[in-house]
Amino acid sequence: MIDLRSDTVTRPSEGMRAAMAAAEVGDDVYGEDPTVTALQERVAGLLGHEAALFMPTGSMSNVLAVRSLVGPGEEVLCESSAHIARAELGAHGAYTGLTMRTWTHPRGLVDLDAVRGLFAPDLGPFFVRTAALSVENTHNFAGGTIQPIEVLRELKAYAGETGAGVHLDGARLWNAHVATGVPLDEYGATADVVSVCLSKGLGAPVGSLLVGSADVVAEARVWRKRMGGGMRQVGVLAAAGDYALDHHLERLADDHAHARLLAEACGLDPAGVETNIVVLDRPDAATVVERAAAEGVRVATVGPRTVRIVTHLDVSSADAERAASILSRVLSS
Amino acid sequence: MIDLRSDTVTRPSEGMRAAMAAAEVGDDVYGEDPTVTALQERVAGLLGHEAALFMPTGSMSNVLAVRSLVGPGEEVLCESSAHIARAELGAHGAYTGLTMRTWTHPRGLVDLDAVRGLFAPDLGPFFVRTAALSVENTHNFAGGTIQPIEVLRELKAYAGETGAGVHLDGARLWNAHVATGVPLDEYGATADVVSVCLSKGLGAPVGSLLVGSADVVAEARVWRKRMGGGMRQVGVLAAAGDYALDHHLERLADDHAHARLLAEACGLDPAGVETNIVVLDRPDAATVVERAAAEGVRVATVGPRTVRIVTHLDVSSADAERAASILSRVLSS
Amino acid sequence: MIDLRSDTVTRPSEGMRAAMAAAEVGDDVYGEDPTVTALQERVAGLLGHEAALFMPTGSMSNVLAVRSLVGPGEEVLCESSAHIARAELGAHGAYTGLTMRTWTHPRGLVDLDAVRGLFAPDLGPFFVRTAALSVENTHNFAGGTIQPIEVLRELKAYAGETGAGVHLDGARLWNAHVATGVPLDEYGATADVVSVCLSKGLGAPVGSLLVGSADVVAEARVWRKRMGGGMRQVGVLAAAGDYALDHHLERLADDHAHARLLAEACGLDPAGVETNIVVLDRPDAATVVERAAAEGVRVATVGPRTVRIVTHLDVSSADAERAASILSRVLSS
Amino acid sequence: MIDLRSDTVTRPSEGMRAAMAAAEVGDDVYGEDPTVTALQERVAGLLGHEAALFMPTGSMSNVLAVRSLVGPGEEVLCESSAHIARAELGAHGAYTGLTMRTWTHPRGLVDLDAVRGLFAPDLGPFFVRTAALSVENTHNFAGGTIQPIEVLRELKAYAGETGAGVHLDGARLWNAHVATGVPLDEYGATADVVSVCLSKGLGAPVGSLLVGSADVVAEARVWRKRMGGGMRQVGVLAAAGDYALDHHLERLADDHAHARLLAEACGLDPAGVETNIVVLDRPDAATVVERAAAEGVRVATVGPRTVRIVTHLDVSSADAERAASILSRVLSS
Repeated sequence: MIDLRSDTVTRPSEGMRAAMAAAEVGDDVYGEDPTVTALQERVAGLLGHEAALFMPTGSMSNVLAVRSLVGPGEEVLCESSAHIARAELGAHGAYTGLTMRTWTHPRGLVDLDAVRGLFAPDLGPFFVRTAALSVENTHNFAGGTIQPIEVLRELKAYAGETGAGVHLDGARLWNAHVATGVPLDEYGATADVVSVCLSKGLGAPVGSLLVGSADVVAEARVWRKRMGGGMRQVGVLAAAGDYALDHHLERLADDHAHARLLAEACGLDPAGVETNIVVLDRPDAATVVERAAAEGVRVATVGPRTVRIVTHLDVSSADAERAASILSRVLSS
Repeated sequence: MIDLRSDTVTRPSEGMRAAMAAAEVGDDVYGEDPTVTALQERVAGLLGHEAALFMPTGSMSNVLAVRSLVGPGEEVLCESSAHIARAELGAHGAYTGLTMRTWTHPRGLVDLDAVRGLFAPDLGPFFVRTAALSVENTHNFAGGTIQPIEVLRELKAYAGETGAGVHLDGARLWNAHVATGVPLDEYGATADVVSVCLSKGLGAPVGSLLVGSADVVAEARVWRKRMGGGMRQVGVLAAAGDYALDHHLERLADDHAHARLLAEACGLDPAGVETNIVVLDRPDAATVVERAAAEGVRVATVGPRTVRIVTHLDVSSADAERAASILSRVLSS
Repeated sequence: MIDLRSDTVTRPSEGMRAAMAAAEVGDDVYGEDPTVTALQERVAGLLGHEAALFMPTGSMSNVLAVRSLVGPGEEVLCESSAHIARAELGAHGAYTGLTMRTWTHPRGLVDLDAVRGLFAPDLGPFFVRTAALSVENTHNFAGGTIQPIEVLRELKAYAGETGAGVHLDGARLWNAHVATGVPLDEYGATADVVSVCLSKGLGAPVGSLLVGSADVVAEARVWRKRMGGGMRQVGVLAAAGDYALDHHLERLADDHAHARLLAEACGLDPAGVETNIVVLDRPDAATVVERAAAEGVRVATVGPRTVRIVTHLDVSSADAERAASILSRVLSS
Repeated sequence: MIDLRSDTVTRPSEGMRAAMAAAEVGDDVYGEDPTVTALQERVAGLLGHEAALFMPTGSMSNVLAVRSLVGPGEEVLCESSAHIARAELGAHGAYTGLTMRTWTHPRGLVDLDAVRGLFAPDLGPFFVRTAALSVENTHNFAGGTIQPIEVLRELKAYAGETGAGVHLDGARLWNAHVATGVPLDEYGATADVVSVCLSKGLGAPVGSLLVGSADVVAEARVWRKRMGGGMRQVGVLAAAGDYALDHHLERLADDHAHARLLAEACGLDPAGVETNIVVLDRPDAATVVERAAAEGVRVATVGPRTVRIVTHLDVSSADAERAASILSRVLSS
């Protein structure tokens, strides 16, 4: 069975397991796990920020990242199919008490005119203030699309003028970086707080990091404990992340090539596939999933008529070719 | 000074005050205020619903109305400048813990294609479910615009098919009713829960009602107490609402005529003004407010470049004419 | 029927209604209601604080008063049968997100040793910090008991040393003041933020005030709007409060005498009844309520075996005597 | 340095690391990690409940366990120094919106009379209802004390009569089981929902489990995702828990013996130390911590005048003896 449901399904390799087994650890609630501390510093450095904090999941990382910019009764603007709006079970409202307004873009991209139209400055205590703008890069549900760096820079400038913060949901920022060659810290410079995941394209079993200023990270550490994310000898997981950054970053290009191959097999223009995700608009989405599974390929629905196909570390070129041929057959039947 | 900032600024007339002074009252926390009970039954009847509940404000009424349809971690869809999104200080997120996604329409109207595009069915415990659709009628910040009844009916049908609820923010539903002649209960039939205000065009000093099924109202009564809205001998306020329904409903047509007069004076097509609100898009919004005030007319900003002019019970035809001439002068200077 | 369920059941007198009918009003959301503003200044002055804010209910006043001292994730300490713990439907947790720990005193009083034992200083981000101490004076469910002023002063001093705030739930502080002769501002000096009610012993139909520093009140004004408590021409209610302070304060002594009379009739030592509330511990509480009602006296249960009898403005001396004789009969049967 | 601050500081042994490195894993968000699934079944079986759910921390496990019994606006009763009241940063209020009342017992034990005194049945929509009773066993801050099984049984019976649920914070239930010989499922039978930790006495690096009915666990799975606790190939951590249950359960008796040795060295009656925690009441708590550290023993403060000493897997008999001699010297100086 070739599993293309998500890049979260990868299993740690032998090398990664060995790194985990050898990790030096300590009690990270007390800030004493050297492997975690080193990974936090490494990732903060990569993104060009002061500090970072290891998190059990990308959801918690995003919730606490947005929370650092937006209080209860304030709002964040985002694209309407952004992960923070669609896939975190409403945690930003349920746990932070913030509110949200959205624009819609067919490829999930920042639409500066829409942002300017929605933006609500502080007009005194009768109206909700826009406290932050959030961008997902790459954008998962729109098909792994990349936010153009110049638009991100313009958005950051606009946020600066208006006093809003910028949140970058960079769960798959690694893919954007590899696909475009834009350095990670140039992406990092376009946001006040960034969330990155180790457990997607990079192939670590668990873990995300919230990246930002030292103050933001210090406060996020307290809220992480309140949310139940303060783990102990978690260096065993951080070691996997470290290994992934050493060995699995550049190879994301392979996933991108595989995704284009699959897109072509599905009758899409491969030029429209920028990274490792292919989305198909199919009224018979559920049937497609079922038939593909019967033939040995697992894909997912992420909307009533949206099929998602994701390539990752555990999909070899041979797997990709076999999956392409199966999907081609399923979709044309 | 002619006050056109909002239709909330009206002062109770002698007749209304006499009605308040004569009101029979009881402890409404125990459900024993006959004037409140009668008003609740009257308004429920007008809207064609089973029950209604008196509320201190439209904000609380909207928060508890939406809460009856949408739980924490679920979402409500609304237009991006809706009162629930912009003007209730984020209470739906802060207090109910729900999340929100929005479409944008230049006149604040329901866009059925946008609703269908945003709508998220229950796809299992990974995604936020759309639990309700919310409509504001008339739409305050878009300029007192009226939602076409046939669109509301289509929206209700769509909600029925998809299992979502419909919330009608009818703070100014009275104005829509008077302007279109559509009976209140026909509007009521397009929603599961409705909020109406007594303190806007109707000219009562305080009060709103949440209208819905007996079950929804029974549960809202508990949450009203939890929110701090369970008042005691509040029949003194309900009596004002009763008086307003007797004397101030049909005369809303005058406010609409005055608003068209003012629109024309401001260089707008009066045909675009459907009820009692005129909004001007002006880069110099703050200056307009200041200059008009200096000349004896108070208007408001409801956005960085949005001037709002509202007619109401305390604006006579002579006032409207004088204000028109002042605004015309201010805007052309 | 003589209604002794609560002092919230009073109906406005002719004089009070006339004052309400004559009240000068404005839109209080904009801070423009002169009657509200004057009442706020008057009550702030009485309590010796900088500012006050009119509230629809004592529940909202308490919630926002405690919120001004205690954030989400912090705690307030109070007696276990305090109104904030028992009778506000958990709003402090549900809406402010704070946590609570309690001590128990048979008369609902401050137990300084218990407070010191519970008190949690800021020990860093692993433990909940005690941010405030809350006192109810008089204490409703313990039977209208009065907190001794010297204990309140000691509590305030202890709070000062430890950096905690003090909240005074003074819904019935008027009764304590009249019973002890301690000036209101001396009570006010023992707290950072005070809540007082107009709709209990004072006999106004609706309304409470949050009293504190100008900063606390300014912030509470924003949160009042978020909670749905920002009413418009609410001077009609404030006028009732003003009238009540003029005419109904000193006469609370009558209610206290009536309560002692009733206590004696119920077989209690009247010396134990300090103000206007009598509580009886009766395993057959529900039956007592039923039988008394059958004889023309309404009393309430406030716990599975607690009967509460409350005197108030609408209970004359003749009423009190008749009720005493009925209750004596019912209780001995 | 001998680290006696907490039993959370243990580092995984070689054997445990080997088990982790060899673990079969899958995507546990999709319920496909066989090692997690097996551990969940094993722990549910040990406690005699239907199901269990792996959690990143004991805090999240407790928050979601209590949430399964207590909604916003309802209350849980617990001892005033319980972990849920003191050490989870107020998450039960901040995230679940519940409220809490407490009794105080010098050894942190259930006081049935106090529970009965505090208990609030459902008296209708004016009062907070007691929805659950929570017990910590062993009780951390009171010094690892054990709740007598017959009291737990009585509490469960009382809860049954009153319709309340029982939550057992069993972070260190393993210690109670080993110290008393009471089977784990007999403890399990005294609660509706249990939380147990792998990362304390058992010595696993990370992980807790929520244990209860299949329905409770299914709902907790959704809320775990909402809270950001839905991890992916987390079988690497579950394998450590499995190893710990195989190898580190019975040896907790050694920790208990070491704790008694340390208690004696600190001048306490060792009979008062029931498991692996010693607490000292010292006005100079901070100084004690500092001096002990200077001599090579780390202990902690868990209150302004409370020193806590904890034995665990990484403290050998030789370590315990050396620490005893150091602490004896420090405390008598």
